[in-house]
Amino acid sequence: MSKKNQDKLLIFALGGVGEIGKNMYVVQYGNDIVVVDSGLKFPEEDMLGVDIVIPDITYLTENRDKVRGILITHGHEDHIGGLPYVLKNLNVPVYGTKLTLGLIEVKLKEAGLLGETKRILINPDSVVQLGSIKASFFRTNHSIPDSVGVCLDTPEGAVVLTGDFKFDHTPVNGQFADLQRMAEIGARGVLALLSDSTNAERPGFTPSESKVGQELEDIFRKAKQRVVVATFASNVHRIQQVINAAMATKRKLTVIGRSMVNVVSIASELGYLHIPEGMLIEPEEVGKMAADRVVILSTGSQGEPMSALTRMARSAHKKLDILPGDTVIIAATPIPGNERFVGRTVDELFRLGANVIYGPTASSNVHVSGHGSQEELKLMLNLMKPKYFIPVHGEYRMLRQHALLAESVGIERENIFLLDIGDTVEIQNGVARKGNKVPSGSVLIDGLGVGDVGNIVLRDRKLLSQDGILVVVVTLSKQEGTILSGPDIISRGFVYVRESEGLLEEATRLVTQTLNKLMSDNVNEWASLKTNVKDVLGRFLYEQTRRRPMILPIIMEV
Amino acid sequence: MSKKNQDKLLIFALGGVGEIGKNMYVVQYGNDIVVVDSGLKFPEEDMLGVDIVIPDITYLTENRDKVRGILITHGHEDHIGGLPYVLKNLNVPVYGTKLTLGLIEVKLKEAGLLGETKRILINPDSVVQLGSIKASFFRTNHSIPDSVGVCLDTPEGAVVLTGDFKFDHTPVNGQFADLQRMAEIGARGVLALLSDSTNAERPGFTPSESKVGQELEDIFRKAKQRVVVATFASNVHRIQQVINAAMATKRKLTVIGRSMVNVVSIASELGYLHIPEGMLIEPEEVGKMAADRVVILSTGSQGEPMSALTRMARSAHKKLDILPGDTVIIAATPIPGNERFVGRTVDELFRLGANVIYGPTASSNVHVSGHGSQEELKLMLNLMKPKYFIPVHGEYRMLRQHALLAESVGIERENIFLLDIGDTVEIQNGVARKGNKVPSGSVLIDGLGVGDVGNIVLRDRKLLSQDGILVVVVTLSKQEGTILSGPDIISRGFVYVRESEGLLEEATRLVTQTLNKLMSDNVNEWASLKTNVKDVLGRFLYEQTRRRPMILPIIMEV
Repeated sequence: MSKKNQDKLLIFALGGVGEIGKNMYVVQYGNDIVVVDSGLKFPEEDMLGVDIVIPDITYLTENRDKVRGILITHGHEDHIGGLPYVLKNLNVPVYGTKLTLGLIEVKLKEAGLLGETKRILINPDSVVQLGSIKASFFRTNHSIPDSVGVCLDTPEGAVVLTGDFKFDHTPVNGQFADLQRMAEIGARGVLALLSDSTNAERPGFTPSESKVGQELEDIFRKAKQRVVVATFASNVHRIQQVINAAMATKRKLTVIGRSMVNVVSIASELGYLHIPEGMLIEPEEVGKMAADRVVILSTGSQGEPMSALTRMARSAHKKLDILPGDTVIIAATPIPGNERFVGRTVDELFRLGANVIYGPTASSNVHVSGHGSQEELKLMLNLMKPKYFIPVHGEYRMLRQHALLAESVGIERENIFLLDIGDTVEIQNGVARKGNKVPSGSVLIDGLGVGDVGNIVLRDRKLLSQDGILVVVVTLSKQEGTILSGPDIISRGFVYVRESEGLLEEATRLVTQTLNKLMSDNVNEWASLKTNVKDVLGRFLYEQTRRRPMILPIIMEV
Repeated sequence: MSKKNQDKLLIFALGGVGEIGKNMYVVQYGNDIVVVDSGLKFPEEDMLGVDIVIPDITYLTENRDKVRGILITHGHEDHIGGLPYVLKNLNVPVYGTKLTLGLIEVKLKEAGLLGETKRILINPDSVVQLGSIKASFFRTNHSIPDSVGVCLDTPEGAVVLTGDFKFDHTPVNGQFADLQRMAEIGARGVLALLSDSTNAERPGFTPSESKVGQELEDIFRKAKQRVVVATFASNVHRIQQVINAAMATKRKLTVIGRSMVNVVSIASELGYLHIPEGMLIEPEEVGKMAADRVVILSTGSQGEPMSALTRMARSAHKKLDILPGDTVIIAATPIPGNERFVGRTVDELFRLGANVIYGPTASSNVHVSGHGSQEELKLMLNLMKPKYFIPVHGEYRMLRQHALLAESVGIERENIFLLDIGDTVEIQNGVARKGNKVPSGSVLIDGLGVGDVGNIVLRDRKLLSQDGILVVVVTLSKQEGTILSGPDIISRGFVYVRESEGLLEEATRLVTQTLNKLMSDNVNEWASLKTNVKDVLGRFLYEQTRRRPMILPIIMEV
């Protein structure tokens, strides 16, 4: 580069590094900001009562005039689920391929944002100029069709974001990852690569999705009764293979579970699913069919409590029951944290007499990952040959393993950046360094509340969940400094009250004593009275029960 | 059998079937009851605030005169942890091998039960007459030394309980599983076999514990700085191998974490651990040593929040820090439910610059299971050749897989009993059938409370944990039916109050209105007032926030 650049290139993540989920990557050159993906994540186990978590986009709203658009790599929740919240505060164009936009539009419709959101359809050959940044794309393989990687040409050089990917040499839909274009991008020169780290801990290659199809057909053929297949609703390839296997074994197909019904409808409407005429039947018709002529495609592969499979396992589904001799295939691996849910569902299915084919006992593959393993990550690194490498989309340990892989293929250690959310990499005239942190973090969504549940509320929920609460109410006379009514003690989640009357009576006596003593000593400030009641009662209850319920003293004055 | 038996043989589980943990098996012939094991389990994720869970032993206390003793197969918590609670209600002799009794005695001492409990030392050659039942033993391999299986000779025939086992052909301590005695028992004839199902889902053989030793030594040798090994405190074999590897690589050893320090002290006192003179150093001395001359043996292999390793990972350990370049070996696999804790600990260790060797990236084995896989389970079945088979020690799906294995080696399907807790198998004159259920279940322990936390308390804790609580207090005049003070609304775990003043003011107004309206209509019963306040407020808050906090109306009267 002979001419010096006045502006800096800035690269950072608002989500997706140091965590699995809520992917959101930002590339800025001068006054042009391009956002890639806008996902959500599901709450961690200490985020009690929280529904979903999205990135803090303060940086983007503070620079709203510079944001040229949001490019979406594929239609998974951890890449599109944050859009309704983001677009409410930041009305910018959204770019995506056909299926991706189809799935986004369902969300925007529900959020009442469809009309006001500019949606721009792209395909892997599109080129989009976003201020000084030119975006082009390359097709990848992943567990949902129509996924792409992004190449952002900036005056500093090319920044490539892979999106989620694997290399599937026998893709179900015949759509190969575009190795030629990736190689071409690499040949032109890549300044910085941001690549998917999900399976950076896993050696070797991830098997092809089409392996699953062969296995499904085998199982369908051997099954003497109905077959139930539970898998991720968004895995359209997998669904197509279920359809193909049903076709090959002359079974009809019924679809249950809200998200599965939705995806099957959108994907077949848009031409991503090919369902033979007359193959689909209603759940109500299943009972009329011979058992060996039916496949039931269902949600619930994660043992989610309200899903169709879990309901069937508990004999609580409105339309369908599991019958002894049915074959149930759980075509998924549990997402960390869901192992127990899945285990319980499998237990219930076995109790109903089903033959369950699941993780540890599946004689061969009924599930493969959508993310590339170590050899594929190295292949991507060698196709792109980037100067700088930023592993993304993973917990810290995965980013770290991905960095080791990058070193192993020859990327210099000092050219690899392990980022936390909000950390920036600044590149100017070809030289990269860590820049200042931008505002960033997690926004918790609970019901309609966006960001109104914070540390204090969560701490209280945690306390309440462990030992419950005791409310102590007393009405005092303002003039006389005497107790007019109470103290009344009401507890929830502390002890079973009927069996602990003695304990609570004793506690009431103690509070009365404490208050009388204080007031006769002329201590009348509410704050002192409350603190004293809390301390005395807390000590007493801990001695008696070794529990520390939240104690809430309330003083009424008349 | 020519002579007819008047009495029935009864076999059942009070814990350990349909669950992992709180193992407790009961064999009764006529008036003689023998209990095998007395474990605890850790609470499931919906048992909020509960510390541990033990079996309901109502059947045993109701038949206390018949209980001849408790035989303990080995010293793991899920086999001995319930003893302090059981013995408080049922003072019967406890039988165990040397290390097992050693570990039990620590517990009994803490519970103040050591003096009053009869403890009887056995070895694998012991024979114990318990009324009409004669108990003998056989040595097994497991992830703790001194584990045995039990053979109970009853007038109906022999009942064999394997305890936890694997077949380790190169055991670390040279103590082989007693194949000869097992074969002998099988040759004499086994009426019923109860066998460990933990790894019934896993094909093949479980590798030998001694594989781990070779791997540890390799890692110790290559490590340029300090090595930290985290593993289960009770795995004395593993600890011995850490010592051996330290010895071979000329490193000193320090031990941290309460349970690790305890086990090392008991096991070496009793001769189960051999620590070379001068090898042990205090944590305080580590700083003075060259980094490549030290091994730190630690608890925390499950990422437990308060464990030594987790504290070090958070730079919150009083005595030791992780330094960049340290090697940390997590020699364990996460118990289901702990994956995220372990993952977070690994992340923190990487952030501190450590080289972490853990599950998915451990190039070879730094951990092997203590439980036999499918081929070993078949071997046990074929050694014992039982008439009846009862898979135990596992979730339902594992019992089910174990049953399939039993069928595969020729046990008749109708001779296999899949039990839930409390289900009995009755055998009389060689014929087995399902009998009546005995009282059984889970007793939850929270602090000092044993069994005082039940469904209502747990339901309340769950509710409180999701959306918090709103307390509404009002003081009414008894005579005039007017509000004297309040309503005051206090919330915890619902919304961040400072940012929601408007919402709470509106809510207060609504409650005032509701109460005034009701009282002017002469509705004065507390119950109606409370119900109305709850309904009106609940509806309002759900509309505004889509949350359903617990609402606790309290009316004071003066």
